[in-house]
Amino acid sequence: MKQPNSTRKPGSHLIRGRFAAPTSTDMQTFSSSLAVDLRMLDEDIDGSIAHATMLGQVGIVTAEEAQTLCAGLETVRQEIHDGTWAPTDAHEDVHMAVEERLTEVVGEVGKKIHTARSRNDQVATDVRLWLKRRLIELDVALTELVSVLLDRIESDGRTLMPGYTHLQRGQPILLGHHLLAHLWALERDRDRLVEALARVEKSPLGACAMAGTPHPIDRSISAELLGFRGLVENAMDAVAARDHEQEVVAACAICMTHLSRIAEELVLWSSVEFNFVRLGDDYATGSSIMPQKRNPDAAELVRGKSARVYGDLMTLLSLVKALPMAYNRDLQEDREPLFDAVDTTMASINITAGMWRTLTISRDRFEADLVGDFSLATELADLLAERGVPFREAHEVVASIVRWCEEQGSGLEALTPSVAREFHPSFPEDLGPWLDPRTAAERRTSRGGTAWLEIQRQVAILEGNVGRGFDL
Amino acid sequence: MKQPNSTRKPGSHLIRGRFAAPTSTDMQTFSSSLAVDLRMLDEDIDGSIAHATMLGQVGIVTAEEAQTLCAGLETVRQEIHDGTWAPTDAHEDVHMAVEERLTEVVGEVGKKIHTARSRNDQVATDVRLWLKRRLIELDVALTELVSVLLDRIESDGRTLMPGYTHLQRGQPILLGHHLLAHLWALERDRDRLVEALARVEKSPLGACAMAGTPHPIDRSISAELLGFRGLVENAMDAVAARDHEQEVVAACAICMTHLSRIAEELVLWSSVEFNFVRLGDDYATGSSIMPQKRNPDAAELVRGKSARVYGDLMTLLSLVKALPMAYNRDLQEDREPLFDAVDTTMASINITAGMWRTLTISRDRFEADLVGDFSLATELADLLAERGVPFREAHEVVASIVRWCEEQGSGLEALTPSVAREFHPSFPEDLGPWLDPRTAAERRTSRGGTAWLEIQRQVAILEGNVGRGFDL
Amino acid sequence: MKQPNSTRKPGSHLIRGRFAAPTSTDMQTFSSSLAVDLRMLDEDIDGSIAHATMLGQVGIVTAEEAQTLCAGLETVRQEIHDGTWAPTDAHEDVHMAVEERLTEVVGEVGKKIHTARSRNDQVATDVRLWLKRRLIELDVALTELVSVLLDRIESDGRTLMPGYTHLQRGQPILLGHHLLAHLWALERDRDRLVEALARVEKSPLGACAMAGTPHPIDRSISAELLGFRGLVENAMDAVAARDHEQEVVAACAICMTHLSRIAEELVLWSSVEFNFVRLGDDYATGSSIMPQKRNPDAAELVRGKSARVYGDLMTLLSLVKALPMAYNRDLQEDREPLFDAVDTTMASINITAGMWRTLTISRDRFEADLVGDFSLATELADLLAERGVPFREAHEVVASIVRWCEEQGSGLEALTPSVAREFHPSFPEDLGPWLDPRTAAERRTSRGGTAWLEIQRQVAILEGNVGRGFDL
Amino acid sequence: MKQPNSTRKPGSHLIRGRFAAPTSTDMQTFSSSLAVDLRMLDEDIDGSIAHATMLGQVGIVTAEEAQTLCAGLETVRQEIHDGTWAPTDAHEDVHMAVEERLTEVVGEVGKKIHTARSRNDQVATDVRLWLKRRLIELDVALTELVSVLLDRIESDGRTLMPGYTHLQRGQPILLGHHLLAHLWALERDRDRLVEALARVEKSPLGACAMAGTPHPIDRSISAELLGFRGLVENAMDAVAARDHEQEVVAACAICMTHLSRIAEELVLWSSVEFNFVRLGDDYATGSSIMPQKRNPDAAELVRGKSARVYGDLMTLLSLVKALPMAYNRDLQEDREPLFDAVDTTMASINITAGMWRTLTISRDRFEADLVGDFSLATELADLLAERGVPFREAHEVVASIVRWCEEQGSGLEALTPSVAREFHPSFPEDLGPWLDPRTAAERRTSRGGTAWLEIQRQVAILEGNVGRGFDL
Repeated sequence: MKQPNSTRKPGSHLIRGRFAAPTSTDMQTFSSSLAVDLRMLDEDIDGSIAHATMLGQVGIVTAEEAQTLCAGLETVRQEIHDGTWAPTDAHEDVHMAVEERLTEVVGEVGKKIHTARSRNDQVATDVRLWLKRRLIELDVALTELVSVLLDRIESDGRTLMPGYTHLQRGQPILLGHHLLAHLWALERDRDRLVEALARVEKSPLGACAMAGTPHPIDRSISAELLGFRGLVENAMDAVAARDHEQEVVAACAICMTHLSRIAEELVLWSSVEFNFVRLGDDYATGSSIMPQKRNPDAAELVRGKSARVYGDLMTLLSLVKALPMAYNRDLQEDREPLFDAVDTTMASINITAGMWRTLTISRDRFEADLVGDFSLATELADLLAERGVPFREAHEVVASIVRWCEEQGSGLEALTPSVAREFHPSFPEDLGPWLDPRTAAERRTSRGGTAWLEIQRQVAILEGNVGRGFDL
Repeated sequence: MKQPNSTRKPGSHLIRGRFAAPTSTDMQTFSSSLAVDLRMLDEDIDGSIAHATMLGQVGIVTAEEAQTLCAGLETVRQEIHDGTWAPTDAHEDVHMAVEERLTEVVGEVGKKIHTARSRNDQVATDVRLWLKRRLIELDVALTELVSVLLDRIESDGRTLMPGYTHLQRGQPILLGHHLLAHLWALERDRDRLVEALARVEKSPLGACAMAGTPHPIDRSISAELLGFRGLVENAMDAVAARDHEQEVVAACAICMTHLSRIAEELVLWSSVEFNFVRLGDDYATGSSIMPQKRNPDAAELVRGKSARVYGDLMTLLSLVKALPMAYNRDLQEDREPLFDAVDTTMASINITAGMWRTLTISRDRFEADLVGDFSLATELADLLAERGVPFREAHEVVASIVRWCEEQGSGLEALTPSVAREFHPSFPEDLGPWLDPRTAAERRTSRGGTAWLEIQRQVAILEGNVGRGFDL
Repeated sequence: MKQPNSTRKPGSHLIRGRFAAPTSTDMQTFSSSLAVDLRMLDEDIDGSIAHATMLGQVGIVTAEEAQTLCAGLETVRQEIHDGTWAPTDAHEDVHMAVEERLTEVVGEVGKKIHTARSRNDQVATDVRLWLKRRLIELDVALTELVSVLLDRIESDGRTLMPGYTHLQRGQPILLGHHLLAHLWALERDRDRLVEALARVEKSPLGACAMAGTPHPIDRSISAELLGFRGLVENAMDAVAARDHEQEVVAACAICMTHLSRIAEELVLWSSVEFNFVRLGDDYATGSSIMPQKRNPDAAELVRGKSARVYGDLMTLLSLVKALPMAYNRDLQEDREPLFDAVDTTMASINITAGMWRTLTISRDRFEADLVGDFSLATELADLLAERGVPFREAHEVVASIVRWCEEQGSGLEALTPSVAREFHPSFPEDLGPWLDPRTAAERRTSRGGTAWLEIQRQVAILEGNVGRGFDL
Repeated sequence: MKQPNSTRKPGSHLIRGRFAAPTSTDMQTFSSSLAVDLRMLDEDIDGSIAHATMLGQVGIVTAEEAQTLCAGLETVRQEIHDGTWAPTDAHEDVHMAVEERLTEVVGEVGKKIHTARSRNDQVATDVRLWLKRRLIELDVALTELVSVLLDRIESDGRTLMPGYTHLQRGQPILLGHHLLAHLWALERDRDRLVEALARVEKSPLGACAMAGTPHPIDRSISAELLGFRGLVENAMDAVAARDHEQEVVAACAICMTHLSRIAEELVLWSSVEFNFVRLGDDYATGSSIMPQKRNPDAAELVRGKSARVYGDLMTLLSLVKALPMAYNRDLQEDREPLFDAVDTTMASINITAGMWRTLTISRDRFEADLVGDFSLATELADLLAERGVPFREAHEVVASIVRWCEEQGSGLEALTPSVAREFHPSFPEDLGPWLDPRTAAERRTSRGGTAWLEIQRQVAILEGNVGRGFDL
């Protein structure tokens, strides 16, 4: 018998049998995904155990061999966790490392673990298992953030503040109304992640390189063992698809956009000029040169980190663009942006929850400030409209009033009823209730309006949602 | 009564009552969204009719006024469609233009249409109505593409070809297997768009600027008239949210990635070197200087246009980043990337369907070529594995065989059984069935494998899906 | 002689001689770049005239033919400008349209214009000519913006304001110091565009499809006629390169980032809370529902439009990714993002200049506000450091002082010398000069510091730069 | 004297004097940039040494103190390099860590190092020093890649191959012509990086937090010590600018686009179908399941990694969007994408050089294949044009010939002169020289054409460029 491998050096790559020269170090570094893949060690071993169990059940390996393989895999897992054995850069990736170590631990039978699978479906399985776990954690984190904001509505929700558009004061609102805008957005983020999970939870295991296998495997056995909810049907799709990853990162990018908006408001509100919130000490930082500074660093970082998730998404999209079927090595580059996007989003959710849990609202910041404020002008327009003045006409009348006040250097408090009626005869005797900001806010009882009753109605719905478990 | 507007010039903006100077032309061009918004003319008029109807039903305007408004709006719609009246650049946007024209048509009552709404919720409504219609059209287009590919499997699905990984021949497969990989991806694209629709189909109408209204409106009336499936609950969220648009564009970007992969393959396969498909005349173009060229322009354009949808997504994400609540004028910039992404995706789906409907497959291109091809090497490894050789060992043996063949300058057809058994004694007497590519493909009967029976099973599932209507 | 083209219909594409079926309308729309290319009509005719002139000079056509071609091209240009003839959708692009019309105008000799060129180098030439002109216009616009800001420093530069970091007040500065930060950034934007121009100004004309030509052309003649500064040397590079476009769009994206920062500040400063600037009427807009609003729309739009230039850049990069040599049809998609980026940047520069030309600064907004403000804390630390206290120690001392003041509910004005010396004995008798914000600002005379003298020094440099013409 | 810091625990942050509670671990992880900043340790110490030296020269510290500080900084550097001391997560960043350790090493005088600087200008200096060094390394790497490709032209440049457009064979060319297209693009990449360097090499040191300092520093001393070529003039610009980083990453992204095009070609040419190159063993990889595979992994990875640099750029642009002056904590997020982009580009350049250094060209792959190939059709059109047939007419005649050949199932070799003259009487008696691909290539002697002489001319220019040193 020929001995083509007699010169094979220990430690050389399992799959390089055909090549004469070893891979150079530069290329090893360039192509190695070990550091990244180590994140999926547990998933890799879980996948291998499920695969080995399936091989045993269908008779491709004996029951005893299957047991040996599973026990060996648990040993390797333990070794790595304990630090008694570790993959090195000489291993191309964590998958090869585990398999090589398994064979050292259990002997020749270790070489059977790779029957009826390939690295392509193995890696695809690992990533999906990893994602599945993280998506559930993201949902838990988002749920906690929702709870924190609901708590805040309970404690501070009736605080009066200006509602801004264009960063101009628009109409007086309650803080609870403002927070609900963020809450509903976060609810949609949760929905998107749950829906993405449905596409993630499909098992690619057993697809092999791309064509399936002649071995009599039963993919549903390993899928069930791993907690998948179904199979990726087509073997080529199983190894070449990355749209579930792109979808998750897109959902993360959208969620980060929401968090960046919350963060921006905290930065604004922490300024001397707005002076509406004071961040908890854990989330603010001093300056090395300006001792009085109380910088909203946590909020700035959340805002800034949204940008990196956008970058991750752009990477994942342009990475897959125009790749022909099936697997191409480019696809290995998916994991860094995927992991980074999920990690960044998770941390940003937690930090946002922490900020809102610990900040202090200046409840009376705007209470007096808004009396006579032009943000009540819409009230006057609505008042005229209620009295039958066409809205556009009412709008113009009030614009004139505002201009007149500005010329006086005063706010709307200067508007006595008699002056008002010079602008339009439909103004009533008593303008008082229309110029009180809190009353103005409470009058907006339309569905979705800023009235406290309406806020409570929405809070009740969201509390119901938060109570719902993640439907597993 | 004061006459603050006595100098107001005809044609000046309805909402500039407070300002002394007219907007300069430069700024008018810069801030105008008229050209873009004209796309939503019908949606704007639909929304206004629903709003007017609701105002009449709850008694904010009389039944007669409501009827006048609705009839007037239909007149304006007709005028614009007929070209007898058109918005000009002097109108800030299509919404103001329609309202101004309405008042010209129906008189003073026209000024009541804007009661209990603002441009913010009005525009948000228009965009959602537009998106709702387009998402349904996208689903129809995708369904047609799926049907075209299923037809193609029926006609050419048993064509033998190399399955590629790394653009290297891997294993022999059937074309139907390859096409199924794309089909399942397109199915997921459909799912994502349907799920996005659920978040699009919520009515923001009646949210007003951001705080709701004291007028006794009933938002569910207008929502139902417009075919929405629910309300955006919070008024601020209703006008400030853009995540449903980002989600749609992300789904489009992912779909375009799939189309770019299909396109890349058509470019490759149209080359002299692959020579596997010939595009229909409608989808190929000649050269101005090289008369023999038959360029796969349609495929190249689909591939290239994926990039613009990525750009649209990047715009929409970074546009909204760090915007505080609620509406900011930046958000007006959402429509161009949104429309462009949806239009581009729609056209690309249709062109892809057209290409696959009309191309010709060279059915015998690979039939002889694959006999003895190294893409059968895996067969030999699987053969050994079936006979009890541990897979890793089998893999190494076959690698040696391949290296030996290459040194001979031959393919695997040179591998006589006796030579084979020099490499490993477990090889059987007759290697014939293992070295025939079609037999090799048909042996891969595992779920998701390339065997024709398995292809048919998947086709049956997809045919069921295509039959499903868009669940409205 | 065979008559293969006897059935050729008028208006059919010049280059489709080889195909049986006409292109379908769908594909025509999908592949047409006519609407976009019309922007380059003048450049296209300029390029053709230069090419025809060169053909005449080297004798490929006669001098008379060259003259006929040039005159005919001017006729076509005039016809299109006058609207007496226009390309239709039946023409694939503007280049084919012009050539076809030319032949109608001058007869058979028109068919000679395309000798020794191809559409590839023709289009590449047009885009470079277009870009060359726009880059010069961008420089003019930026120069004007720089001038406007320098004027503003002259008129308002000594206005006292807080310098912000983290949107927290850091140290008192002069407005001129703040504006200089933007000015230097804009200067770098100008430099980048000038440097990009050097790579744009190379003629690709005469490269033909990608391989050059056997005709005895002289590319330097047409290059010189068109005002290019050199040739793209390699013919394949000439038609396949898009890096000069990516570079320009990247420079635009960076410039837009600068403009977005300026815009953000204008939005902030226009708020009631900051109340530091009042935009000119041309650049602010009212609200349809809140009559008192004075929205900084122009600034918001500049801020928002930065996002579309980012998207354009992302499109242009991922468009060209992994395209093999040489021309691929994908590259036709370069023009829309390129034109959009340049147009958007141009308009945003002009609008920013307009805003700064017309806004009003509240010069005394911060004058009193900053007395005793914690933004003077650094002064105290520097004071201690000057007196030999190690800076870190000084920093800690002052942090304690700030904390003490906050506990008192006061600012630094509460810090009498005797209290100060309880914190550290090195504090002097008279803290007055150290607690006056204007004095504090003027003390920072280090190079690049906020002292007025230093501002004037920098202004003088920039005025010199603005005086420099665009070096053509 | 009050003792506000008496309870300060060892190891707590230097700058948190004002806060009661320590930063929580979560927030510490979230905000820490230690892992990233460690890359700039040497630059940080270099910067501090230059700063201390300057402080000594202008008399802010004594000469002895300056010496102590410099010696202490070198000790810390050595400790870190030796691993005898290391920053921990308790340090917010590497800058604080070094300063804290410095004070442990040299005592109280260590607290003087931070006089007249802040972390803002310190970090800005570090990044610029880091970038300066890496830009020079990038230039060296690119120069090496250019050299490798020039070597390849020398050894294989006359290899005949089809020039492709649309991945269709266009015209016969020489490999040298093809490689020159890439070479000129790489030359422009070098130019862009050199020009970016000019903006990087400006010292921000001494700008302090944003306003300059009252201490009598001389910024040009430290700038010169650090090898900068000038100063960032304005202190606010010095700490808030990131456009030089965006510019570098944009230049990297453009360079990666070029490398991705080279990589795509290597993937194509390594396929069985093209079979034009064979990658060196170091740059190809086997398959875990398909032993015959020789996957062009290195090329695929370069192609894929271009996507991550696009993502980095997108991050850096949207990160800075709309940030008001001056420093905001978001800006800390600049380093990861910056470092990643530079590292990835550097490695990809090196790997590309390695691939081209070690691959084998199949010199005779196309030699026979191109005889009679339709890619010679342009020759026939040019032949007719030379004989006075208007080019468009010539083009149509040859298109008919190609169609006729296709109907015959033959290539152009079937075109006897007599048949040719049936298509057009201007064809000569002997078509031989026009149907020989090598002759066809060599006839294209126009500037930039594919003739070998013209290739040599361009090579000579590039060899001169490579010889040029990086102008320091």
